Amino acid sequence: MEKQKVSLVVVRRLPRYYRYLGDLLKAGITKISSKELGNQMGLTASQIRQDLSCFGGFGQQGYGYNVSHLYKEIGQILGTEHIYKAVMIGGGNLGRAIANHIEFQKRGFNLIGIFDIRQDAIGTKINGVPIYDMKDLESFVTENKPAVGILTLPREDAFEVAVRLKNLNVEWLWNFSNDDIILEGVGIENVHLEDSLMTLCYRIFEKEQE
Amino acid sequence: MEKQKVSLVVVRRLPRYYRYLGDLLKAGITKISSKELGNQMGLTASQIRQDLSCFGGFGQQGYGYNVSHLYKEIGQILGTEHIYKAVMIGGGNLGRAIANHIEFQKRGFNLIGIFDIRQDAIGTKINGVPIYDMKDLESFVTENKPAVGILTLPREDAFEVAVRLKNLNVEWLWNFSNDDIILEGVGIENVHLEDSLMTLCYRIFEKEQE
Repeated sequence: MEKQKVSLVVVRRLPRYYRYLGDLLKAGITKISSKELGNQMGLTASQIRQDLSCFGGFGQQGYGYNVSHLYKEIGQILGTEHIYKAVMIGGGNLGRAIANHIEFQKRGFNLIGIFDIRQDAIGTKINGVPIYDMKDLESFVTENKPAVGILTLPREDAFEVAVRLKNLNVEWLWNFSNDDIILEGVGIENVHLEDSLMTLCYRIFEKEQE
Repeated sequence: MEKQKVSLVVVRRLPRYYRYLGDLLKAGITKISSKELGNQMGLTASQIRQDLSCFGGFGQQGYGYNVSHLYKEIGQILGTEHIYKAVMIGGGNLGRAIANHIEFQKRGFNLIGIFDIRQDAIGTKINGVPIYDMKDLESFVTENKPAVGILTLPREDAFEVAVRLKNLNVEWLWNFSNDDIILEGVGIENVHLEDSLMTLCYRIFEKEQE
């Protein structure tokens, strides 16, 4: 399949397609039209055809999409068949939740270690993943070469740790620290939980004023 | 101040402005030009002027923005001076992290109760917030009238609970269940953690292929 350079806006919709198609597969549905898929996802048929055509288009006129084929193709596009190693910095409440809750293997990652500074946490495990001393970050990363750092540490420490990781050639961050880290050569996927909550607050407040 | 109807795209940027301005305030900076603010936030000066003009524009030619004034105005626009009551459904790892980690009061919310079905959790507290039996959801919500339900329960149960909440006149959801719930009359703010992780996977995979 020829792959074009695809905009991040379209890419961000792909996991959602992947999720819906996975549900259809589980429900035993083998084919679906762009119209039906659109109905379920709250998108127009033409939006769906346009999105998927960015990846070479897997539909067939008058037949629709082969669900299992499309699911597999999107999975491949997303790279979930690869396994990238990840380390987590911060084994507090948020780190614990992410380590327990996220199915890393299914999403293309392997969480190989969690780092913390609290002596009572070091040496324990979260969901089978060992917690190491932050002092050992350099030696561990040099040896194991993770691709990704997951920042679940307090905001005030996030930038310094991001720089430490960058210096160890960790070029990707999944950042929960609510700090917009900008570092040359480092790709960052931010999750701003509090921004989402404030957007909700705005929407409620705005609705009340109508 | 006259407020126009503002697009959700602009609204979603406001919490970020609010965060940056809060940092400037803490650092004792009292005024800032759109250019300086843009440099820090990775936006152009004209983007900033355009965004803020949607809210009546608080800048002054040749002077820049009064940081504390702008911070306060944006906070008011976001409605963070209001306190909306919220209940959380699901006191597992993710719920525990959210309840412990998010500063609800600062974001315009008061988390008044957490609901769960696990008998060993019921009666305990997370960050001072009591965990109640899911059986008591109807009586509690009827009495306390929360505006928001926070869904931190497994995906397969999320829709049913969203309907229960809707029937109790809870018209807003902060949804972590990774299920795209669509319910008429209910405003939903989704946090799709796994979609974010898959986007990261795609970006790494794409970069490798360059």
